[in-house]
Amino acid sequence: METPVAEAEPARRTRPARPARRDNAAKIAGVPYIVRNIPTYDILGEENLVRIERVADRILSEVGIEFRDDPASLDHWKRAGAKVEGVLVRFEPGMLNEIVSAAPSQFTQHARNPARNVEIGGGNVVFSPAYGSPFVMDLDKGRRYGTLEDFRNFIKLAQSSPWLHHSGGTICEPVDIPVNKRHLDMVYSHVKYSDRPFMGSITAEERAEDSIDMARLVFGHDFVDRNCVILGNVNVNSPLVWDGTMTKSLRAYARANQAAVIVPFILGGAMGPVTNAGAIAQSYAETLAGCALTQLERKGAPVIFGNFLSSMSLRSGSPTFGTPEPAIGSMVIGQLARRLKLPLRCAGNFSNSKRPDAQAMQEGVMSMMSAVHCGANFILHSAGFLDGLLAMSYEKFVMDTDFCGALHSYLAGVVVDDNTLAMDAFLQVGPGSHFLGCDHTMRNYQTAFWDSALSDNEPFEKWSEEGGSTDMAARANGRWKKTLAEYEAPPLDVAIDEALTDYIAGRKSSMADAWY
Amino acid sequence: METPVAEAEPARRTRPARPARRDNAAKIAGVPYIVRNIPTYDILGEENLVRIERVADRILSEVGIEFRDDPASLDHWKRAGAKVEGVLVRFEPGMLNEIVSAAPSQFTQHARNPARNVEIGGGNVVFSPAYGSPFVMDLDKGRRYGTLEDFRNFIKLAQSSPWLHHSGGTICEPVDIPVNKRHLDMVYSHVKYSDRPFMGSITAEERAEDSIDMARLVFGHDFVDRNCVILGNVNVNSPLVWDGTMTKSLRAYARANQAAVIVPFILGGAMGPVTNAGAIAQSYAETLAGCALTQLERKGAPVIFGNFLSSMSLRSGSPTFGTPEPAIGSMVIGQLARRLKLPLRCAGNFSNSKRPDAQAMQEGVMSMMSAVHCGANFILHSAGFLDGLLAMSYEKFVMDTDFCGALHSYLAGVVVDDNTLAMDAFLQVGPGSHFLGCDHTMRNYQTAFWDSALSDNEPFEKWSEEGGSTDMAARANGRWKKTLAEYEAPPLDVAIDEALTDYIAGRKSSMADAWY
Repeated sequence: METPVAEAEPARRTRPARPARRDNAAKIAGVPYIVRNIPTYDILGEENLVRIERVADRILSEVGIEFRDDPASLDHWKRAGAKVEGVLVRFEPGMLNEIVSAAPSQFTQHARNPARNVEIGGGNVVFSPAYGSPFVMDLDKGRRYGTLEDFRNFIKLAQSSPWLHHSGGTICEPVDIPVNKRHLDMVYSHVKYSDRPFMGSITAEERAEDSIDMARLVFGHDFVDRNCVILGNVNVNSPLVWDGTMTKSLRAYARANQAAVIVPFILGGAMGPVTNAGAIAQSYAETLAGCALTQLERKGAPVIFGNFLSSMSLRSGSPTFGTPEPAIGSMVIGQLARRLKLPLRCAGNFSNSKRPDAQAMQEGVMSMMSAVHCGANFILHSAGFLDGLLAMSYEKFVMDTDFCGALHSYLAGVVVDDNTLAMDAFLQVGPGSHFLGCDHTMRNYQTAFWDSALSDNEPFEKWSEEGGSTDMAARANGRWKKTLAEYEAPPLDVAIDEALTDYIAGRKSSMADAWY
Repeated sequence: METPVAEAEPARRTRPARPARRDNAAKIAGVPYIVRNIPTYDILGEENLVRIERVADRILSEVGIEFRDDPASLDHWKRAGAKVEGVLVRFEPGMLNEIVSAAPSQFTQHARNPARNVEIGGGNVVFSPAYGSPFVMDLDKGRRYGTLEDFRNFIKLAQSSPWLHHSGGTICEPVDIPVNKRHLDMVYSHVKYSDRPFMGSITAEERAEDSIDMARLVFGHDFVDRNCVILGNVNVNSPLVWDGTMTKSLRAYARANQAAVIVPFILGGAMGPVTNAGAIAQSYAETLAGCALTQLERKGAPVIFGNFLSSMSLRSGSPTFGTPEPAIGSMVIGQLARRLKLPLRCAGNFSNSKRPDAQAMQEGVMSMMSAVHCGANFILHSAGFLDGLLAMSYEKFVMDTDFCGALHSYLAGVVVDDNTLAMDAFLQVGPGSHFLGCDHTMRNYQTAFWDSALSDNEPFEKWSEEGGSTDMAARANGRWKKTLAEYEAPPLDVAIDEALTDYIAGRKSSMADAWY
């Protein structure tokens, strides 16, 4: 057979986001986000996409979704015309699609440094650190619970990398801070140690409100009402249940005109069907309902269509990460999200390894490539993810940010113009010679190739005799320490800093510590 | 912007090659080759492809290619109407395209076990071991020159993997055997220790002839004249030079109706332009000329359009492997090869790492994914490649074959049918429950997910307390030893075995040892 040929001419539709070449030891520069110059990788045709959408319609209309412990959500659904029986809500086909059509297909998330603003949606790609691990690990001290110091270290490492675009959210849980107060320290740390966009808390409605209030102190109340400055990542309790904690936080973000990221986490065979097509249909239905709820709370509020497919070892029952089925499924999710014209969060640098080893990068790269191929606009978990998201690894973090750098070159695609076609070089060099010093090479070599800061490209002898025969993990260990030692905080307006610390002091003194 | 949407409905055009689930410790089974159920990833549109082809036309007509030390090749070109001046040959635009149109778009390479025959071309994918390293390495003994024992070990490891389809060729150089005789031992070893298809020598015309003669002893003279049973991988001496050693071997394979693989190795900035589009145009021109020469030697002989793009560290001048520019360039090569309707060899599991570490798999996976995305039909270097092809690694070999297993699942794509859509499961399970024991899961779990034999998916505590806190390299070290210990040779007809050993004895006694 001849494999089908896609038609795509991305070079004519978008500008390449080729990063300027820089020394690997140089201070951060980089682009604020990537404008992709390669098409998405679309693996299903119209007929199969429609079949999946029709099953999602049937799930929504015949089975329904429960919205627990949040009467205001049920009121929204009743007013919108859904069938509400107790906490079970069922939706006529097409109803949710109509509601989400009010959401923007692309929006700006503002950073306190406007040069770091990101565009989320369309052909834009934003890399953000991993999110939510209780543990951290490094090669020196092994695994232990994360602390606020670790949390701040990861913000500093992210801020120091030219290849990330976003400061993320709960990069690791700072378990040394009470559960009901740590969101205050986390949001403050993002503002203090990074000048990039960031995420707030979603673990309780009041913590979401606190996060947004702190953003208002940074950006101003009116500005926040008109612009997105903070994201909140909310999870479906799959299958087909939205918990009140999540919908209340989701509505808090939407109400403030901030963007909720709507993410089912489906472990195939447990929280969804063991087959990809069914898991995708379920995920689509759950996300669509969450996205629609944001629009009922505030029509036109930004929202991100999110996804996190995973698989299971059927020998051990353990979840698996960075495996082929979720990677290939992500491409279908991307196609479906684009049919809804919603920005997409999908996949990331996932792994189940407990070390920054070959498994970590084999799984991570397969998964991360699916994120960029599927057209994800906001790629949470771009760096640091190990042990099935239970641990943030210092070494993996810098390996992953280095790989994010490679993806900047990858997403720049193949530029075809008179310069890159190099006809002048062929006429100058001719058969049997070399291109090392020709005019074309001299004109282009500085921007030609990605040059990793962590890969060893020396000859074996030099690597073994001068380089200490290191592996990448050992080099990464040295690199994160050097980066932290050299870190300098971006300047922060003193009045804003004081307003935030006053706010935090007030909130902390208003409630007793809670540890659950 | 909205990213362009490709139209592709591969599920309706091809049958999925979903492998049957098997225990990881089980004897080899697997499919003889993969029939892809996902489209190729096409990143350039018609206009840019034509621009690259037009530059290739100009290279061929204005600059030309030298064919050195092979007057018979020059005679072919003269008869075909090319402009020959000394050893420089120039071609009118379209001339070579017309000549290669006689080559088959797909052909069968026969194995001595017919159940292992492979289809090369179309939507088929064949994984073959890496090729050509002088060194081997493992975690116990480090790096040393390869021997015939190593060579045979890698054949045995390949034969034992259900995820490779081909026995390869010069997997490593057996440097303990004289240069002018080692091809005899290599071809014999492929026949003796594997029942899969394999490759012969190309380092001298008489060694190519020996390889083909030995294949005739296995398959019969007439059968070989009518069918492809052996491949020869020939390299362009880029830029724009074909050496006589290579063209004589190329013609020997074509004359015998066997398939030459035509491969430029272009290190951008050295043997070709430092920009991707120009390197692609050059590579296309060089390969097209080689493919055409096979058709002038014997019209209709099978031939494979090959490619090996690489990049360079402009800090150190070292070649780099597994980097983003060659990976993305491979997708364009694939589009161009399909326009010629020729089977494609492109990319592989490349790395510059000197260890089976995170770098090895980060680079390897990026590169190997490009091979499957670009539509490569024959993927040489699917397993074992380290240190920029200078060393075959025992550990990386089994890591890579495991990853080839994952790619079987990846290339099976997302199957969309009533079973996989799982509507019955949603109706049975409903909101808030789980799918672990539902009918749909019980019906599908055995074939649901790829289960790696090398990734550790256990919880951290079990991994550290019972599993010895291993990394993937350590597990791979145990696995290749166990596999070799359990290896059993496939049965070989005694008469064929004797004919081969007699042939080798006769050839070896006919010439003195040569070590260069």
